[in-house]
Amino acid sequence: HSSKLPHLGTSIFTYMSGLANQYNAINLSQGFPEFDAPKLLKQGLAKYCDQGFNQYAPSSGLAPLQTQIASLIGRKYGVDVNSKDTVTVTSGATEALFVAIQAITHLGDEIIIFDPAYDSYKPAIELAGGRAVHIPMQAPDYAINWPLVAAAITDKTRAIIINTPHNPSAKTLKQADFDELKALVIEHDLLIISDEVYEHITFEGTPHISVLSDAELFSRAFVISSFGKTFHCTGWKMGYCVAPETLTQEFRKIHQYITFSSFTPAQLALTDMLAEEPEHITALAPFYQHKRDVLVNALQNSRFTILPSEGTYFLLLDYSEISGLDDMSFCEYLVKEIGVAAIPLSVFYQTAPGDRVIRLCFAKEDRTLIQAAEKLSAL
Amino acid sequence: HSSKLPHLGTSIFTYMSGLANQYNAINLSQGFPEFDAPKLLKQGLAKYCDQGFNQYAPSSGLAPLQTQIASLIGRKYGVDVNSKDTVTVTSGATEALFVAIQAITHLGDEIIIFDPAYDSYKPAIELAGGRAVHIPMQAPDYAINWPLVAAAITDKTRAIIINTPHNPSAKTLKQADFDELKALVIEHDLLIISDEVYEHITFEGTPHISVLSDAELFSRAFVISSFGKTFHCTGWKMGYCVAPETLTQEFRKIHQYITFSSFTPAQLALTDMLAEEPEHITALAPFYQHKRDVLVNALQNSRFTILPSEGTYFLLLDYSEISGLDDMSFCEYLVKEIGVAAIPLSVFYQTAPGDRVIRLCFAKEDRTLIQAAEKLSAL
Ligand SMILES: CSCCC(=O)C(=O)O
Ligand SMILES: CSCCC(=O)C(=O)O
Repeated sequence: HSSKLPHLGTSIFTYMSGLANQYNAINLSQGFPEFDAPKLLKQGLAKYCDQGFNQYAPSSGLAPLQTQIASLIGRKYGVDVNSKDTVTVTSGATEALFVAIQAITHLGDEIIIFDPAYDSYKPAIELAGGRAVHIPMQAPDYAINWPLVAAAITDKTRAIIINTPHNPSAKTLKQADFDELKALVIEHDLLIISDEVYEHITFEGTPHISVLSDAELFSRAFVISSFGKTFHCTGWKMGYCVAPETLTQEFRKIHQYITFSSFTPAQLALTDMLAEEPEHITALAPFYQHKRDVLVNALQNSRFTILPSEGTYFLLLDYSEISGLDDMSFCEYLVKEIGVAAIPLSVFYQTAPGDRVIRLCFAKEDRTLIQAAEKLSAL
Repeated sequence: HSSKLPHLGTSIFTYMSGLANQYNAINLSQGFPEFDAPKLLKQGLAKYCDQGFNQYAPSSGLAPLQTQIASLIGRKYGVDVNSKDTVTVTSGATEALFVAIQAITHLGDEIIIFDPAYDSYKPAIELAGGRAVHIPMQAPDYAINWPLVAAAITDKTRAIIINTPHNPSAKTLKQADFDELKALVIEHDLLIISDEVYEHITFEGTPHISVLSDAELFSRAFVISSFGKTFHCTGWKMGYCVAPETLTQEFRKIHQYITFSSFTPAQLALTDMLAEEPEHITALAPFYQHKRDVLVNALQNSRFTILPSEGTYFLLLDYSEISGLDDMSFCEYLVKEIGVAAIPLSVFYQTAPGDRVIRLCFAKEDRTLIQAAEKLSAL
């Protein structure tokens, strides 16, 4: 009997974090913060657990959390979403992505994704019986070639997955991109899965343009976000999906048979966090911009070429002046010999373009970033 | 564009718990305990969260939790499983079931399930591109007709899903069932998905026979269990899957792209709970046997026929002397007019046999059970 995912092994994040531990390297590979979740959130978890809120939440999420999510969306994007019928709490954004893909992908459907692509998109599409159609983007600007997207659309195309701010490229989609996207999805009647898990982390006032803020786009979209990225609690695996009512119905049919519901005390704690400390979210962009700048400054005298990071907590480095190794070999060399773990970009491509680029996560203490940069600057 | 699950709506548990709230009825429908999780577990959650263990766990689960699961299996079934390569922590047993089904079901594969079947099996099979082949079991004994199973096996049959102790029938599989199962899976080279989430809840010394205790069966099996049922924390959505190394590899490939990992502080708290209070688990069977007996005794003068419950926290009642309504209508009547929410058995069947049977959950305080029984005895 053959494997359902014959070409896949362990995810790059598991592999590189494993190597980082094994070689005692500074782990700037897998994206997770070195700092802890806010006190209010942690206290909330303890409080609601202690008070006995430990049984199943409703499958769509606790109503007060749905309400707070809708209110955040209202404040940030100026739109009114119906919390009850359009917001679904999930066990992480990865679950939400998987469910949305399952909900719309029929046998043989094609889903357009942009490479470098977050590594769960393609297996999720294949497990749903679909085929991922890869549109490459490349260093240094990772711009979407929209004529290429238009040319890739066939009778079988069902949806386009976008991701902004983009992991791993750290680029954001601009209004011009959304104009192109809109024309295509309307002309070909396509759905959109919009991965916006870094929505609150954009720099220098770069606005995050959400699919939520365009009624026409939202009418055919699943918009997915993550509490882990926003509240420094990636290990809580909490996220959500916002979609119009008819799409939400299909989403929930599937979600109820995968995880059914998500950690009850965490839902209550997140509700309080959203209601009582909204300033945590608005402080996130300057917080991470500082981190980015610490890392960029500390790398100023290195031989890496630093690519611009407009959002997310990732920074790309071009190492072509340092080494001729392919990026996987270069990352293995870095973790073993230099003591810094990074992520090679090629793993996010169907057909890697041969760019010599690696990704660093800067969601770390300043001293960690400086220490890593010192090691990298010795190259 | 059509629905991926056109015949499905909201799960029966969501529907009946919703009605119970709306009509302020005693909710004996959805299975969750009225009592709280153990203090040590709750304190552990608070402690590890406070100490800052809030980032991603490894995708397969934290090693100390895997070790404790293996040690529980060793104590209970006298077998040695390799915790690192065979135990995977999941976000609930429902996720584990979904992943196991995805891991082995290729397009057109047939998976045999026994009706009444837990409601997630069939949609999970269909989303994986397979077909559920239903073998009916019926009141009052819900015995498996093994010649019928043998006759249902075709070239396309890939696996059999068993569930013991069985939800909703509250029956357990006997050694004779396992002998029949073994002959069939060997002859036809089939896999087994064994849903054992109520493994610690069997009555009157009825042994729980686990697939884990038979090396030949385990060599082709995914064995799935749930911390929610064992530790009164259904809202934590924590479970696990034990499978031989090659099956575990396929399982993990998929798990990493659905939830990736599960709530980190909960994994640490469960580790301590398993290590420090093993007596919680051995006390579970007598604890629930008492609950069952309270409910059974309180229903003694009712006009329901009480079916034997050998395990789980469910009890079946035959209402054919009370009403000619179909079981869904009867449950709607019960929740609206009598003030007790129950689950109709017919929803767990592809082709309902017309039995007049409902399921009650007795994971409730004695007074709740007695109050519900009083209402039901008035019928
Ligand atoms: C689920 S582990 C991956 C974390 C992450 O999003 C990343 O490093 O890109
Ligand atoms: C996930 S809600 C269903 C709970 C349960 O297992 C049951 O009531 O049978």
